Amino acid sequence: MALSGKNLIAGQWVTNDEQNTFSAYLPATDDLGKIQFYNVSSEQVNTAVEAAQLAFPRYRRISAAERASFLQTIAESIMSLGDELLQITHMETGLSVERLRGERQRTINQLNAFSVELLNPSYTDIEEPGDETRSPVPKPSTKLTRIPLGPVAVFGASNFPYAFSTLGGDTVAALAAGCPVVVKAHPAHPGTSELMALAIHHAIDKLAIPKGVFSQFHSTDPVLAHQLVRHSGIKAVGFTGSQKVAELLIKSIQLRSDSIPFYGELGSINPQFVFSEKIKHGSGALAQQLCLSLLMGNGQFCTSPGVWIVPESATDFIETCSTFMSEQYSDTLLTKGIQKEYESSVSALKMNKQLRNIANAKQLQHFHGTPSLFATNAYHFVTNEQLRKEVFGPCAVIVTYKQIEELQQIVSVMEGQLTASVHGTERDFEEHKDLIESISFKVGRLIYNQMPTGVEVCASMNHGGPYPASTDIRSTSVGQQAMSRFLRPLCIQNFSE
Amino acid sequence: MALSGKNLIAGQWVTNDEQNTFSAYLPATDDLGKIQFYNVSSEQVNTAVEAAQLAFPRYRRISAAERASFLQTIAESIMSLGDELLQITHMETGLSVERLRGERQRTINQLNAFSVELLNPSYTDIEEPGDETRSPVPKPSTKLTRIPLGPVAVFGASNFPYAFSTLGGDTVAALAAGCPVVVKAHPAHPGTSELMALAIHHAIDKLAIPKGVFSQFHSTDPVLAHQLVRHSGIKAVGFTGSQKVAELLIKSIQLRSDSIPFYGELGSINPQFVFSEKIKHGSGALAQQLCLSLLMGNGQFCTSPGVWIVPESATDFIETCSTFMSEQYSDTLLTKGIQKEYESSVSALKMNKQLRNIANAKQLQHFHGTPSLFATNAYHFVTNEQLRKEVFGPCAVIVTYKQIEELQQIVSVMEGQLTASVHGTERDFEEHKDLIESISFKVGRLIYNQMPTGVEVCASMNHGGPYPASTDIRSTSVGQQAMSRFLRPLCIQNFSE
Repeated sequence: MALSGKNLIAGQWVTNDEQNTFSAYLPATDDLGKIQFYNVSSEQVNTAVEAAQLAFPRYRRISAAERASFLQTIAESIMSLGDELLQITHMETGLSVERLRGERQRTINQLNAFSVELLNPSYTDIEEPGDETRSPVPKPSTKLTRIPLGPVAVFGASNFPYAFSTLGGDTVAALAAGCPVVVKAHPAHPGTSELMALAIHHAIDKLAIPKGVFSQFHSTDPVLAHQLVRHSGIKAVGFTGSQKVAELLIKSIQLRSDSIPFYGELGSINPQFVFSEKIKHGSGALAQQLCLSLLMGNGQFCTSPGVWIVPESATDFIETCSTFMSEQYSDTLLTKGIQKEYESSVSALKMNKQLRNIANAKQLQHFHGTPSLFATNAYHFVTNEQLRKEVFGPCAVIVTYKQIEELQQIVSVMEGQLTASVHGTERDFEEHKDLIESISFKVGRLIYNQMPTGVEVCASMNHGGPYPASTDIRSTSVGQQAMSRFLRPLCIQNFSE
Repeated sequence: MALSGKNLIAGQWVTNDEQNTFSAYLPATDDLGKIQFYNVSSEQVNTAVEAAQLAFPRYRRISAAERASFLQTIAESIMSLGDELLQITHMETGLSVERLRGERQRTINQLNAFSVELLNPSYTDIEEPGDETRSPVPKPSTKLTRIPLGPVAVFGASNFPYAFSTLGGDTVAALAAGCPVVVKAHPAHPGTSELMALAIHHAIDKLAIPKGVFSQFHSTDPVLAHQLVRHSGIKAVGFTGSQKVAELLIKSIQLRSDSIPFYGELGSINPQFVFSEKIKHGSGALAQQLCLSLLMGNGQFCTSPGVWIVPESATDFIETCSTFMSEQYSDTLLTKGIQKEYESSVSALKMNKQLRNIANAKQLQHFHGTPSLFATNAYHFVTNEQLRKEVFGPCAVIVTYKQIEELQQIVSVMEGQLTASVHGTERDFEEHKDLIESISFKVGRLIYNQMPTGVEVCASMNHGGPYPASTDIRSTSVGQQAMSRFLRPLCIQNFSE
């Protein structure tokens, strides 16, 4: 399975200028891959969107059952790529083959979950009959249904090369909703993106779906990303990435003459609130669980627990965390950019006198991300905004508090989060009832006594939250409800079948 | 019932600088009212938002049944204002007492509909049990619920002083959702706004609702409107008004560090597509219905039919419209601004050589809005954007077409609309199936053989649509579904009761 380095524009595998290419970063060896990937041209981006616009009227009329079968065929196509897919992604991301196997299964499950949703929709039209005899005016018959928004632009994420990338949640939700998709592939795993595009290309061919329904392009030039979101043919944007890039894209979208949804899933420190009775009943297991949760994907999960808030008395807990973390080893980070950023953030924390650096894992390679733990108190955490910023990678800050008032202050200065966990006994939860209610207004998902990492794909999931966790608090990027982000209501009045 | 001219800020009736006041315009006499209304101060706006923020945690914990009773008490308070309310509104708007009686009833019905929705919610939490035995990882239990966004800013509209103003759809939907509300009263009917604020003030007093749950201020200085939407305590904005004002408010919202929903309901020309067989079967009744629909509220309905698209052969239809309209009389417009704007728009249309001015009603007063009808052909309509702009008031353009291709062109150049109607026989609809499907993607509500004016308050209504009909295609401003614009999902994981 040789990679071509090409872009898939409405069914055509296209190159561009031979001089304008890039290579994938290979985290394991801190090196560049051999394959050249073609940066797309501005015209090719427009071609992709125009093809999506043309395909939209045909694609939206395809029945739900046919769309379900399309998603299932994509799932089969992914599996027929075989384990070579896992190998290539492993090279490009440094993530273990085992982890990638799990993520691939999650992506398959996601495609299947949306198929099932299409076949057995949880949403049903609301129909209300008319009443000619009503006074002073007759009541018209009305039916509320949902229709797709139109072509969707999707920006793949670096940290989940399958589940949040080319064929990730946003693409699948959009396709399920009846929207064509144009993907800007993440340059951290271009080969993986090409293979996933190949999988959907095969499914499109097999089922004779209009070819404009899916395009994917590579571009290391941000100008083309901005061109994509400003194109009048694009009717919604799904994005997973940094707050900085999202804010730039939002500025471009604001230049449009219309107003379209921008669904950005950005950063989160996912605070972990640990209450006192829980600590009294023994905190060793919790300490270890939090460390392991932080270490998942070497801290590069969007739900990675970045702040652990514990009673001042929790000295054993802190000790356990410190010991455990010191025994761990460094690991690769996804990109050179993430690695540099992580290094400089951790250095800044080490220089900060308000923090104690209580543990560092063993560094195996100079280009690795080395897990680090810091400790501070509630006063510093509340008064110094810098301590509340996300560090993308395996770094967490333990914050100690003396009394409930400090917990309230922490919650009130907290920015919007994807998740927060509360760790406690029934009595703890009863005592902190109001506090927990306040926490729920700062998060997309509130978790009792479990780790934040691991986002279940199900109908009752919400992966989103107040800004800057997401740019649209009303919408989830994970689970079957994500389909509704690409649908909108239409009322049909006085229609007879 | 003497009007005070005051602002209601968190339970206090407050004045400001005695020099900084304004009077209501009285359309019937083209004069100003005697009562002075106090423009609020910048500090008072902040006080209102801060009180709303403080009230939010208490208000959101009030049970759905108590909120339902709150809405019912507001409805009772409105009715106990008696017919003096209708008189004052009639003075301020020029709308007939009969029309206002109907609109008041609609507003009461709306409060009741939301009460019923709170008592018998159509939305139910989605709960999924956990599974400890699932491999490779256990499945957590999750529950998806909805929580209120927080304090909402509402901008009252001029054209519906009850149903889309102080206690209009947005305010009621927000209160039902559990959100405090700060209203910027529309200066076209300040006395009406004061009385409606009084009604809610009474209900708040009676039920001991936190006073910060509702504030309303007057301001003829747009700076304070912008201050309101930029305040970090405001978490959503409901707006009904012009595209121009909405775009300025959106610019202010874009300066915020977070991202909040802006629900603007703006303009619409509500195109009426009339097919050929319908015309062949006699078009007299339809012509008269369209004229009457246009004349409702002297053309100042957001769903007023501004463009009637008919076959070239429909000469009888055009003749009937022209005769009927020439026999009508002019009437008042809501504000001096609307009147000037209407006059200049109609003058411009009269000067335009691409249009024929086929009818004008009889002008009774120089400051009235005089109903006018124009005619043009599909070619001019498609090629000249100016002909597709909304004229707010009793003016419509009849567009004649020769063939289906012209209809397709009209739909493809059409901007987003609140509504469109298709008028035809079963055979017409069958013949134009694809065209009608295309129309549905340009509108919030698609109507078969009925007039667009009259928006039913019901669960299957959608009052919104693609930009510029609304600024958020995903949301309705009318009907029980409007509550969801002020709610957002929250997932609760591993919670035991």
